[in-house]
Amino acid sequence: MNDYQERKAFYQTLLTIYGRKPVLEALQDQGIPVHKLHLAHSNRRGGIIADIEALALQRGVEVQWHDRQALSRISRNGKQDQGVAADLQLPSYRPISQLFDQADNSYTLLAVDRVTNPQNLGMIIRSVAASGIDGLVLPRKGCAALSPLVIKASAGTLFKAPIYHCEQLSKTLQQFKDDGAELSSLSSHAQDTVFDEGGRGGKRIYVLGNETEGVSGDIEALCQRRLRIPMHNGVESLNVAVTAALLAFAVS
Amino acid sequence: MNDYQERKAFYQTLLTIYGRKPVLEALQDQGIPVHKLHLAHSNRRGGIIADIEALALQRGVEVQWHDRQALSRISRNGKQDQGVAADLQLPSYRPISQLFDQADNSYTLLAVDRVTNPQNLGMIIRSVAASGIDGLVLPRKGCAALSPLVIKASAGTLFKAPIYHCEQLSKTLQQFKDDGAELSSLSSHAQDTVFDEGGRGGKRIYVLGNETEGVSGDIEALCQRRLRIPMHNGVESLNVAVTAALLAFAVS
Repeated sequence: MNDYQERKAFYQTLLTIYGRKPVLEALQDQGIPVHKLHLAHSNRRGGIIADIEALALQRGVEVQWHDRQALSRISRNGKQDQGVAADLQLPSYRPISQLFDQADNSYTLLAVDRVTNPQNLGMIIRSVAASGIDGLVLPRKGCAALSPLVIKASAGTLFKAPIYHCEQLSKTLQQFKDDGAELSSLSSHAQDTVFDEGGRGGKRIYVLGNETEGVSGDIEALCQRRLRIPMHNGVESLNVAVTAALLAFAVS
Repeated sequence: MNDYQERKAFYQTLLTIYGRKPVLEALQDQGIPVHKLHLAHSNRRGGIIADIEALALQRGVEVQWHDRQALSRISRNGKQDQGVAADLQLPSYRPISQLFDQADNSYTLLAVDRVTNPQNLGMIIRSVAASGIDGLVLPRKGCAALSPLVIKASAGTLFKAPIYHCEQLSKTLQQFKDDGAELSSLSSHAQDTVFDEGGRGGKRIYVLGNETEGVSGDIEALCQRRLRIPMHNGVESLNVAVTAALLAFAVS
């Protein structure tokens, strides 16, 4: 690996969060490794900004000041970053390439396709972390960004959850397929239920789709299996976060 | 039964909903039996009010006009009823007394204690309906009212879910205990997990507590058993609606 590749690989392990309260809370939690704090010159000194800076200095976290535009590029959300961002180096937040690099890799993962509601994504992260499955495959394209709303809905478990991030889900799923993994999606018409999936071992990916539209056509086409959650009383579907929890606990 | 008792028993089977959109949607769905439509004189005629009235006439639903204050008493929420309420006669919405009246009653039920967030309550109703357990015990005191927000979060399953309503949960749980039922609450310190509960039969009530505070002390004292959902990665708790879904599907 050359210098550039090494730096790139390092930056891919960082999760950048933004907003005054989420960054303050991350700094207050000694269990969350903060790599760097970013502040905009436009912030009025004092108050919560002073608290944030003091905490960073106390923890020995590097503080960098930027102009407003540069900070927007770092947070990727200038409208809501409130002039504050932080790079976290979470032990369980990794690019998907790390999974494929492992020699003997068997895994059971949940993947989300176009889950756009931050509340749902936060709840999914919380359930995945609790369930003990190997992780969540989270594409940057099409899903809600890891915003303060997601952190809040995850009840802070975003900092503990095993997350494999990627750019585009369809490409990553193709890689999984090439790796010999079995891809399953949920369908109310399927014969097999998720409750027969526990402890099967091997390489398995379960794909969850958008809140109203379900799984995209191109991703559906990649999946080899369909599974259903058995339902009563004429109920046709469940909330996507509830589905994720049932699935994650059933297959773990 | 005298005339008064008969009338009282009948009114206990009605669910009164309010708000223009929820009432319109209930009338549009032929599967939802609407007993009576209530409108306030203060409504401006035309628009959605005309649509609601026309639908009611078309379906042969009795329409009653009231002054504003009388309507508030019917909806029990004058601030949000928008001058419209409807009494639904749902086949699966009943007072808890009906359960005890049955001769040979074995049952598996979920009970909610102080679930105040309408979104969570709606999701719980949806999951309970889908799970196939015998029903949800829903106290009027301490829980969110069955408002338009709850109907929306339930994705309309409020009209299908088996719900046993009562006034105060602690009194009803004491009745269950007198009926020989086994009461369980969730606790992270418990030895047994909810996943060992499936298909046990008999009379069982599982109590879920408030989003942040858990089960009330007096209700906790009534429960004979504690159960846990096994959790990983240092996660301490799950969203109450997610917990309800895992529990309902595990014990059904």
